[in-house]
Amino acid sequence: MLKDSERVDDLLTHNLRIIQSDEVFSFSMDAVLLARFASIPPKGRVLDLCTGNGVVPLLLTSRTKASIEGIEIQPRLADMARRSVALNGLEESVVIREGDLRELYKETGHGIYDAITVNPPYMPMNGSDIKLNEHQAIARHEIHCTLEEVLQACTRLVRTGGKVNMVHRPQRLGELMTLMRENRLEPKRIRFVHSRAGSEANMVLIEALRDGKPDVRILPPLIVYNEHNEYCQELLDIYYGSKKKRN
Amino acid sequence: MLKDSERVDDLLTHNLRIIQSDEVFSFSMDAVLLARFASIPPKGRVLDLCTGNGVVPLLLTSRTKASIEGIEIQPRLADMARRSVALNGLEESVVIREGDLRELYKETGHGIYDAITVNPPYMPMNGSDIKLNEHQAIARHEIHCTLEEVLQACTRLVRTGGKVNMVHRPQRLGELMTLMRENRLEPKRIRFVHSRAGSEANMVLIEALRDGKPDVRILPPLIVYNEHNEYCQELLDIYYGSKKKRN
Repeated sequence: MLKDSERVDDLLTHNLRIIQSDEVFSFSMDAVLLARFASIPPKGRVLDLCTGNGVVPLLLTSRTKASIEGIEIQPRLADMARRSVALNGLEESVVIREGDLRELYKETGHGIYDAITVNPPYMPMNGSDIKLNEHQAIARHEIHCTLEEVLQACTRLVRTGGKVNMVHRPQRLGELMTLMRENRLEPKRIRFVHSRAGSEANMVLIEALRDGKPDVRILPPLIVYNEHNEYCQELLDIYYGSKKKRN
Repeated sequence: MLKDSERVDDLLTHNLRIIQSDEVFSFSMDAVLLARFASIPPKGRVLDLCTGNGVVPLLLTSRTKASIEGIEIQPRLADMARRSVALNGLEESVVIREGDLRELYKETGHGIYDAITVNPPYMPMNGSDIKLNEHQAIARHEIHCTLEEVLQACTRLVRTGGKVNMVHRPQRLGELMTLMRENRLEPKRIRFVHSRAGSEANMVLIEALRDGKPDVRILPPLIVYNEHNEYCQELLDIYYGSKKKRN
């Protein structure tokens, strides 16, 4: 079941396992936090864009009975994600599509998803020093889709009143909020993640409501490490999937 | 020197005093945090919009040799502010204008300020239950100027590369960031204020750069009360104007 350079990692919750490769794709804390932060309906249809090796769809299976789809443009990653779905026996709950998120609405129609999650490439393309291999470069840089294209796809695919949840870098918050609102996605719930209580945020989790009214809630900051350089309790709860009530 | 219902309060720092009135206008923590958060040049011209009883200009005198102006549309408040300036012997540093911030550029010309601070009315006008007296209503609701008009005024009045610092409610962050960017004010530095470490933010401090490039820093959260319901040390440092280095 494993190909070159691949290994199976434990997702640390609900006995989930995932196929990873340092050369191709390994999930980050960002994806785990997104999968916990996102408002997901108990049933219906949920879509994860830029799904990579499928980490977000796999984690979401523990939170909903919805039908979950992931879409990934890189054939090698889509294949890894499908094998991870099979490895966990989740073929009934999760379908991995290989394709371009910009074109998906032509196949599915408009407004058919109740919620969308997305951990997009963070870095704009600026012709600068991309020293990664192709797989890594596509996952991290806006090579196949810009932030604007991701949000346009979200707007086409999510129903009115549906939710779009994204993780991104705080540096791009200005563009992110402008582009969301231009695309009728109203930011409603934001959480910043700080490595330590006294450090600047290095991640932002943001939920937008399709055709919502302006009204933002800034949740309590999520602090990763305590003063002893250990994971804070809330981080452990998120990783190990405790029943602790979400904000 | 005092009129009906007025009293003199201590600003707790640099021996500054201020004329206040519960019936007309008393400053809030918001103004104090804004006056400490704002990037203020060591000299040049600084303007405070919606200056009320002049609390922000008074506090800024301890941080800069710049010429400081405040503008206030309510004659009664502008008069209070002027008397507070005189009470502190700061007539050389601070000038209070009485007038409409939307019209000020006609008098001063465009782009003449190096920095602007503003603690605007937080609540949109929606014909709802305004049960305050006129002075309070004007300070809290967008009766004389909307958020958009405040930002248009900032853009006209601040020079290219100059900074606009605002305090507002997080609920309006979406509109705020969109309107800033539409007015060529690029959000660069944001700090959220939370009553307690585990509560949602109830205030946002935001600095924008006229004609800046998109790149936002989210500063460490500012927590007001510790677990013993006492002010956190950083709040005390801000109120008492310690030399602690700003972020």
